[in-house]
Amino acid sequence: MFKIKFLPHNKEISVPDGENLIRAAMEAGVHINASCGGEGVCGKCRVLIEEGKVEGGVSEKLSNEDIEKGYRLACLSRVKSDLTVRIPIESDIDVSVLNLQSTPRHTAKIEQMNLDDLKEKGLFVPPVEKKYLELPPPNAEDHLPDVTRLISFLKLNHNESRLQLTLPVIRKIPDILRENDFKVTATLERPVREGRKTRIINIQPGDTTDRNYAIAMDIGTTTIYGQVLDLITGEILGEHGDFNGQISYGEDVITRIVYAEKPGGLKKLHDVVIGTINKVIAKIIKKARIDPDEISTITIAGNTTMTQLLLEVTPRYIRRSPYVPAATLYPPIRAKDLGMDLSDHVTALVYPQISSYVGGDIVAGVMGSGMYRTEELTLYIDIGTNAEIVIGNKDWFACAACSAGPAFEGGGIKFGMRAAKGAIEDFSIDPVTYEPMTMTIGNVRPKGICGSGLIIMVAVMFEMGVINNQGKFNRDLETPRIRKTDDVWEYVITWENESQIDRDVVLTEIDIDNLIRAKGAIFSGCQTLLEEVGLSIEGIDRIFLAGGFGSYVDLEKAMVIGLLPEIDPDKVTFVGNGSLMGAKMSSLTNRIRKDVGEVTQMMTNFELSETASYMDKYMGALFLPHTDMNLFPKLKKRLEERRSY
Amino acid sequence: MFKIKFLPHNKEISVPDGENLIRAAMEAGVHINASCGGEGVCGKCRVLIEEGKVEGGVSEKLSNEDIEKGYRLACLSRVKSDLTVRIPIESDIDVSVLNLQSTPRHTAKIEQMNLDDLKEKGLFVPPVEKKYLELPPPNAEDHLPDVTRLISFLKLNHNESRLQLTLPVIRKIPDILRENDFKVTATLERPVREGRKTRIINIQPGDTTDRNYAIAMDIGTTTIYGQVLDLITGEILGEHGDFNGQISYGEDVITRIVYAEKPGGLKKLHDVVIGTINKVIAKIIKKARIDPDEISTITIAGNTTMTQLLLEVTPRYIRRSPYVPAATLYPPIRAKDLGMDLSDHVTALVYPQISSYVGGDIVAGVMGSGMYRTEELTLYIDIGTNAEIVIGNKDWFACAACSAGPAFEGGGIKFGMRAAKGAIEDFSIDPVTYEPMTMTIGNVRPKGICGSGLIIMVAVMFEMGVINNQGKFNRDLETPRIRKTDDVWEYVITWENESQIDRDVVLTEIDIDNLIRAKGAIFSGCQTLLEEVGLSIEGIDRIFLAGGFGSYVDLEKAMVIGLLPEIDPDKVTFVGNGSLMGAKMSSLTNRIRKDVGEVTQMMTNFELSETASYMDKYMGALFLPHTDMNLFPKLKKRLEERRSY
Repeated sequence: MFKIKFLPHNKEISVPDGENLIRAAMEAGVHINASCGGEGVCGKCRVLIEEGKVEGGVSEKLSNEDIEKGYRLACLSRVKSDLTVRIPIESDIDVSVLNLQSTPRHTAKIEQMNLDDLKEKGLFVPPVEKKYLELPPPNAEDHLPDVTRLISFLKLNHNESRLQLTLPVIRKIPDILRENDFKVTATLERPVREGRKTRIINIQPGDTTDRNYAIAMDIGTTTIYGQVLDLITGEILGEHGDFNGQISYGEDVITRIVYAEKPGGLKKLHDVVIGTINKVIAKIIKKARIDPDEISTITIAGNTTMTQLLLEVTPRYIRRSPYVPAATLYPPIRAKDLGMDLSDHVTALVYPQISSYVGGDIVAGVMGSGMYRTEELTLYIDIGTNAEIVIGNKDWFACAACSAGPAFEGGGIKFGMRAAKGAIEDFSIDPVTYEPMTMTIGNVRPKGICGSGLIIMVAVMFEMGVINNQGKFNRDLETPRIRKTDDVWEYVITWENESQIDRDVVLTEIDIDNLIRAKGAIFSGCQTLLEEVGLSIEGIDRIFLAGGFGSYVDLEKAMVIGLLPEIDPDKVTFVGNGSLMGAKMSSLTNRIRKDVGEVTQMMTNFELSETASYMDKYMGALFLPHTDMNLFPKLKKRLEERRSY
Repeated sequence: MFKIKFLPHNKEISVPDGENLIRAAMEAGVHINASCGGEGVCGKCRVLIEEGKVEGGVSEKLSNEDIEKGYRLACLSRVKSDLTVRIPIESDIDVSVLNLQSTPRHTAKIEQMNLDDLKEKGLFVPPVEKKYLELPPPNAEDHLPDVTRLISFLKLNHNESRLQLTLPVIRKIPDILRENDFKVTATLERPVREGRKTRIINIQPGDTTDRNYAIAMDIGTTTIYGQVLDLITGEILGEHGDFNGQISYGEDVITRIVYAEKPGGLKKLHDVVIGTINKVIAKIIKKARIDPDEISTITIAGNTTMTQLLLEVTPRYIRRSPYVPAATLYPPIRAKDLGMDLSDHVTALVYPQISSYVGGDIVAGVMGSGMYRTEELTLYIDIGTNAEIVIGNKDWFACAACSAGPAFEGGGIKFGMRAAKGAIEDFSIDPVTYEPMTMTIGNVRPKGICGSGLIIMVAVMFEMGVINNQGKFNRDLETPRIRKTDDVWEYVITWENESQIDRDVVLTEIDIDNLIRAKGAIFSGCQTLLEEVGLSIEGIDRIFLAGGFGSYVDLEKAMVIGLLPEIDPDKVTFVGNGSLMGAKMSSLTNRIRKDVGEVTQMMTNFELSETASYMDKYMGALFLPHTDMNLFPKLKKRLEERRSY
């Protein structure tokens, strides 16, 4: 790690060897004009290396004289020692203003499942285990039937009781015993419900106890992720994601449901999703380099519509008032019966649903994150086109879904895009000139704005006074970047000649408005849900953020725009793909499979659209950060300081 | 009923209107010479009607003078009033001897399942029941998922809890509810094991609670019987039997096993038996005039080999030392998965096996006869090629199988045949002339001898001194009927000209020897089994006889030859097809399905071939009735009386 001091701000930061200098500056909250996304073409990010050494940073945009003096382009420089770096600024005013410009950078800590912890607590008990047996062969004094023999010795040698077999396994037993000198391995599947029997789902020649695998899978509306898990070590051996093939039949759940209502539509969508699932299964098996026959179980989580399409249960009534799903719990199903390319003995377990819009993906997150086992009051938010909110702890749960719209995924934003190469993911603004500093994914010239970038952008502009609390641009600022096009005010982030798309990349008031509606829906959803259970935002001990973009969100910025309630960022944890995590966790610890039914029953669903106060709260949340600034005391204080300055 | 007095015997009997007079005589133990089986062609059964009126009885074998005097052929006469009938006899000796000739006729009482008794005891609780529901539709305040709604109201209106659904039923629910104004009928299947859940296996529009059916089936090596049962009334609505199609691949279980070991043989035999099952199912559904979709469950019983072939489990090791079956209990299986033409929701339950040669047919008999619930010590014998013996009561059970050989089914008997038209089924002998009285099934000229006829014949000949206790003919008797042909002694039952087959129908010493071996195997099996559990024959409270021919067996005669131990014939009950009865009973009362696992575990199997004393006992049983006459005190007394006379 090297230490960098930025002057004249006098801000210090530690970064790893080789870190990009402009990213280090961004991290430190130091603005450097930069509009090409970090590709080195705009040449605006000239900095003076006063002490220490960088690699690269030289460009034709710099004169030889400058280079000799120690100037470098920050975006092309890699840190190779402790540094003192001076940022050239326009005026004295700048220096004093600069320190106000930015909240510290805070992304959520990432929840890593702690396997050791799990093992320590005795919870690493996968639902499927293998037991090796050397049976005495029958003789004139011992006529035990083959199955009885197997069961007796599972009891005697492994203390396994209450066992049950399937017919296909019984069919294999007589020959397999005699062909292998009565030395076999039995695969045992634990019951989901307490008091039920352990099933012997497979019987194999010899000792195969060193290989036993599970698949965890998340069926998203857009993407399907799968993992191969080693049930002996708990490790992920292979992982892969692919677009859900159903996308061709509709982008979102509603259009999928409409398609499913057509004759043959349900079967078609079922077949298509199974097609993608099988592609993913093939891929992860290949990556994991395992024998497919050694996969013993699969756990699947998805939202209510995805789950019903997977199980070929009509989703027709999900989109019709009063919006009821077919079921909450589904029975375990033979994976082969669903069309999956897995062995005959593999059972698929599907996460239960709460309501039409709070599905198995959310239940999986609640289970997998462990929040259902703690005292702490946790707010779990899965941010996507539909945002799902869960509040609760080990004693109770309330949940709700709200339609955030696609803003966080770049939808409804003029230059919105998914978090891919060329997407602006970070942003700051010069408090005097209002010139931007833009960073893109992949350090290439900007193409558009991704969700996390959008939040940062709007937060920065709001704190800098570029937009007001209604998301309108300050018409009085003197900068060519703020302009009116086709009757809509906008800010030019990247000029045409520095973008990848030969057009100006802009942020419009309509974009900002869409973001405000999205964040307003989520915030007021949290507020309403809390109120319904008699609590307030202050009562929350921690926040779990799930969803594709959560890990990139700058938490302080998310609080500035009023997406998240203002709490200590250290109390926010990113759980990533909560759905996949839950599927994984219940593959590794059968406790979760047992508990999920009870947790599902504990969970009270609130229909926000039918909660009278929701609309009022939503209206109040359609401001930056909110009409009630007392909900955001830290921000209020900062803004007051800024104004007083 | 009319009263008939036979003279000079002075024996009386009551018979129904229209009864055949010669059968009435046989029933009364009155011998009338008759060798044409009752067809009226031999003309030997001349009797004098001294009082009363018969219909028919006139034949060209009688002169007009005789007819005027009141002579009739007994075999052609039907009783139409009280009668006094005189039998013409040769000498005075005859008269006094006649009263010694025969034990009273005793066939076993037939066990009829007492439905009222079952209902009274609260045991008429079929494993599948239907419940009608009128659900409130969901609305803005009530978003219960469809399945949850169904389950909640099954609890609320029918007090049904611990319910579980299958995916195919879940798939039907959303549409069926809405297409039928939320009025539906749920079919509930009770768990086989205590503590497990009731499954909702079907959901139907409207109220269908007035129709609910089950199928009970016996898979015999030779014949497959099925019944359609009304689960509301308990009645049999249709019944049918057909030859097991596997017969073409081997007559007995051993040849079937040999065939099953050939490549593709197991699958073939499985397919063939399913073919017969489907024929029987089609037939009984047609007879019952019901909608096949209203059949909710099927219960099947068969011997170990038949069960394994049905389930496609290799029977290879059943015929190989140490003769172990694959399993005892089999899990419930979807009937459709086995290939049965039944609805998707029908589960097949198969009776468990005890050992390779005591199978589900015997367990079914034990369960269906209720002997597993009583204090009385019961001896259950299923007589066939393989005879199975069970001894026990509600606290314990012991069982064994012995190979009786095919004598009881007419196999190994020179003129042996199945109990079909033309088979001699009853027999007596004139104590002076040794002329026979033969009755055939269908009152036609004799073609052969069936199992029950054979027992009577040998018993009568033994009591009359025609054969000795080793089954050898008394060479000193003066009758042309006893002769030596091809070095084998035989008795001519029917001369060529009076038989159907243009040959003399005879009983040879080899035939008698085969019968003695068969009965000896069973008797010594019972003895050995009793000794193994520390009891003797005197300890038996009652005997249950199962199997195709049990109902026709003359019990006293069976005790004379030493097939059955000598007990009060009133204590012997014929349960008929015990396998079918058991399948039926567990379709009507779920208690049996629950108890069978425990009963199976209680049952100790003894391998007679490995029990040292069995061979000794078998040797002792190779006499009429036994070397130890003290085992048959009543017979001993009768024989002593006869000798003293």
